[in-house]
Amino acid sequence: GLERVLAMGRAYVDFAASSPLQFELLARFEATEVSTTDADSNHFACLAAGAQVHALLTDALEVGIRDGSVARSAGSPNTIALALWAMTHGTIQVASMKRAVLSQHAVTPAALVEQTLRMAAISLRRGE
Amino acid sequence: GLERVLAMGRAYVDFAASSPLQFELLARFEATEVSTTDADSNHFACLAAGAQVHALLTDALEVGIRDGSVARSAGSPNTIALALWAMTHGTIQVASMKRAVLSQHAVTPAALVEQTLRMAAISLRRGE
Repeated sequence: GLERVLAMGRAYVDFAASSPLQFELLARFEATEVSTTDADSNHFACLAAGAQVHALLTDALEVGIRDGSVARSAGSPNTIALALWAMTHGTIQVASMKRAVLSQHAVTPAALVEQTLRMAAISLRRGE
Repeated sequence: GLERVLAMGRAYVDFAASSPLQFELLARFEATEVSTTDADSNHFACLAAGAQVHALLTDALEVGIRDGSVARSAGSPNTIALALWAMTHGTIQVASMKRAVLSQHAVTPAALVEQTLRMAAISLRRGE
């Protein structure tokens, strides 16, 4: 449950580190509207792939609730999955784009990632 | 303590909603290296303003540890402050750039923001 959720967070961090251009493109990709006219486009393919990742993450959260590693009071798996994506996404961006700020405060990119994953893990394990 | 920390998170969200262009510029601003040659530049001014916000947030976390609203085991105020920035930043970006994805999963931008702030609050209050 929770371990699988955290492993997905680390996988996203690793993907961004090994494929920075692809990560940057995904970040700038404006999924502001679902177009119904171009079901064959790359746009549609990106949305579909994102939906699959979302389903995997939601499933891992549901397994976690069943096995007791994720508190039921942490929120709905659907909303938590989106919040985890947003947090991890922001952490990767700050870790790569704001390295001077991190080094100003003597925090390494890896330590920032660990702190975010740790806060996510605590909130999922403990709930309200 | 914790209330002040969360109020700063909400203030950042409100700023991004009312000044989307400024937020987008700050997001794309690459603070990857501190240049020592242009102390009068906008670049330097941005880093200095960011350092002031970081000091306010770190201070609020330290007050929270003293008044008991923030668990000492949550992490060091310095690292937590950077993680909170990254999480909130990512949440604002997902809420504005990926509206189609959110609506695909029937989650409003406001609900996403609430979930992230809730997870941040739980992790700070409870600690390990």
